[in-house]
Amino acid sequence: MKAALYEGKQKFSIQSVDPIAPGPDEIRLSVAYVGICGTDTHIYHGAMDARVQPPQVIGHEMSGTVAELGSNVQGFAIGDPVVVRPLDNRAETAADRGHSHICRDLKFIGIDSPGAFQNSWTVPAFAVHKAPHGVDLQLAALSEPLAVACHDVRLGEVQAGELAVVMGGGPIGMLVAIVARATGARVILSEVNENRLAFARELGFEAVSPIDTDLAKLCRERSDGAGADIVFEVSGAKAAAAGMTDVLAIRGRIVLVAIYPQPVELNLFQFFWKELKLCGARVYEPQDYEQALQLISEKSLPLDKMITRVEPLDNIQAAFENLDSSPNAMKVLIDCQA
Amino acid sequence: MKAALYEGKQKFSIQSVDPIAPGPDEIRLSVAYVGICGTDTHIYHGAMDARVQPPQVIGHEMSGTVAELGSNVQGFAIGDPVVVRPLDNRAETAADRGHSHICRDLKFIGIDSPGAFQNSWTVPAFAVHKAPHGVDLQLAALSEPLAVACHDVRLGEVQAGELAVVMGGGPIGMLVAIVARATGARVILSEVNENRLAFARELGFEAVSPIDTDLAKLCRERSDGAGADIVFEVSGAKAAAAGMTDVLAIRGRIVLVAIYPQPVELNLFQFFWKELKLCGARVYEPQDYEQALQLISEKSLPLDKMITRVEPLDNIQAAFENLDSSPNAMKVLIDCQA
Ligand SMILES: NC(=O)c1ccc[n+]([C@@H]2O[C@H](COP(=O)([O-])OP(=O)(O)OC[C@H]3O[C@@H](n4cnc5c(N)ncnc54)[C@H](O)[C@@H]3O)[C@@H](O)[C@H]2O)c1
Ligand SMILES: NC(=O)c1ccc[n+]([C@@H]2O[C@H](COP(=O)([O-])OP(=O)(O)OC[C@H]3O[C@@H](n4cnc5c(N)ncnc54)[C@H](O)[C@@H]3O)[C@@H](O)[C@H]2O)c1
Ligand SMILES: [Zn+2]
Ligand SMILES: [Zn+2]
Repeated sequence: MKAALYEGKQKFSIQSVDPIAPGPDEIRLSVAYVGICGTDTHIYHGAMDARVQPPQVIGHEMSGTVAELGSNVQGFAIGDPVVVRPLDNRAETAADRGHSHICRDLKFIGIDSPGAFQNSWTVPAFAVHKAPHGVDLQLAALSEPLAVACHDVRLGEVQAGELAVVMGGGPIGMLVAIVARATGARVILSEVNENRLAFARELGFEAVSPIDTDLAKLCRERSDGAGADIVFEVSGAKAAAAGMTDVLAIRGRIVLVAIYPQPVELNLFQFFWKELKLCGARVYEPQDYEQALQLISEKSLPLDKMITRVEPLDNIQAAFENLDSSPNAMKVLIDCQA
Repeated sequence: MKAALYEGKQKFSIQSVDPIAPGPDEIRLSVAYVGICGTDTHIYHGAMDARVQPPQVIGHEMSGTVAELGSNVQGFAIGDPVVVRPLDNRAETAADRGHSHICRDLKFIGIDSPGAFQNSWTVPAFAVHKAPHGVDLQLAALSEPLAVACHDVRLGEVQAGELAVVMGGGPIGMLVAIVARATGARVILSEVNENRLAFARELGFEAVSPIDTDLAKLCRERSDGAGADIVFEVSGAKAAAAGMTDVLAIRGRIVLVAIYPQPVELNLFQFFWKELKLCGARVYEPQDYEQALQLISEKSLPLDKMITRVEPLDNIQAAFENLDSSPNAMKVLIDCQA
């Protein structure tokens, strides 16, 4: 079988390797589709070489079917369509207070251990979620970023009718907007990239650039003067963080999804004055995966539009190179079936 | 009767004035004690002259008794001990979403309208809370800052057994520590002023300076490695804001009580990584006043120790001058009965 090995320095090589037989508590999967994530492009650019130790197979946004079951594994049958929640919390301790998905010694499968850009992938059974039979395996490969969005909207406690602002219309922001709207929120998407603004409008969102639109004013207009109920910060831009307090109503909430490596200036006066709330959101919990799979199988959301291209595994090098030159793509999937 | 008028430029004058007869929905109070608040010292230093328009009577942390009732006022009798919740929300609109205590056009009684440093004070009846008969009127004058603390601990959803860090041991921080402990939390107080540290230890708190103690390490030691459950930021110091994310456990909470006039750098990475929460807290709601009055009448908390001195109204000028030269005082009360 074939595997794509990240070799360091923006280089993948396609190698012939043997499938790994599952241990007693593992499952071997036939991989169908694997999405390329922002983290994968970071790895490709060498930013995480200390952690991934090339040559290594990477990739974690996957769909596939069960190929072989470890001796202790129950509840799965060969051929079942599945996805992987790539979190390994086996080093969790009591000091993590039961928050397994963000425990201190969390390992990320596909980064800290081999990933999915290969024909066959062997993973711990606890990480595998069964998808409904007949699921579209291309859409199912979106379950990981969609579960991020489900987690964010759930932690934000979005209520029907609320006015939500999503800052940043990359793949994650766009999925947050889609899930927030499905939950009944009225969504305004804020984005600086014209192509992504156009795509958001295609999906039916009110999408504006904060450069030429007074976002706080727009939010007041859309809410009888009150301001937005909730902001999802999914841009990672300091300017967005500085402005998010302005768009909110009294007691408005912020869900912080973006990763800010450096400290950022916030308007704490506004937090005090309007009694604003902020909560960080990281990855997902099992119920977020279940909701993502449910939304995928319902087929009522425009998730298919999120898939920009599908490329065969043999073309993985070109696929990563293209992402650098066309940064407007939403999701590029790698077809790992051949 | 006598009133102390703030004349601008760190100057009070004692004047003889007529009591103001209550309008139909007002109550005239005989003032007993009035605490000097941080805001009063700001006013005294001229920082709010545009808003207070001297000469004006200021002061809002008061206790007293009912002297005269407006024709529409029910539920009060002459002589009832009372305190005033100095918030006037009559300009509230629907866009304030029912959050009366922080509505956009909130007026603060004693700042935006005359205050309590006088023998007799006439206020809207909706702002008056009855205190239990027999209440100690000196302690009752602490109800305003104590209600701030009750509000903060309530919004923080403090649970018995939790580890709480209070950053800043001024009058507000000390009361937050007292209420958090009364709610069952284990409290660590962080303060840089040696006199305030000593006072906190007198009250039985574990009190440390973040300059010579590694607060994050101490919190882990006090929580089997997890970190603190909740931080109350009551110092207003940028260094405290920068460090508050470090002391918290996974999913820890921050209640932001301090007022930061300028934007402040926060470690947003930690918010994401540990899924931290932050919420702003401003003044109080009626139920916080009721809780404060309840705690005062129970007499089980060391609130009497919070009263550093009591000065007669005639000495108000000296009392404000002394506060500048002895910044370690907790609460100085002005006796307005003569
Ligand atoms: N919380 C989690 O578990 C989690 C999971 C995945 C990704 N992330 C983070 O979420 C963020 C978004 O991920 P993505 O893959 O969609 O990234 P992305 O870079 O594709 O999207 C960010 C978008 O923000 C836009 N933007 C830049 N400045 C802006 C501004 N001032 N206002 C509005 N929009 C602005 C950019 O044009 C871009 O389209 C990243 O920070 C990523 O690290 C977090
Ligand atoms: N949210 C509200 O409604 C409300 C109400 C009243 C007061 N406040 C605000 O609360 C804050 C506290 O009020 P106060 O009257 O107690 O003020 P204060 O100035 O007396 O107390 C602040 C304390 O913080 C200490 N401090 C300074 N740097 C520190 C650090 N790095 N770590 C720990 N402690 C440090 C100071 O020594 C001081 O004792 C102020 O910002 C005030 O404006 C808010
Ligand atoms: Zn991903
Ligand atoms: Zn006050």
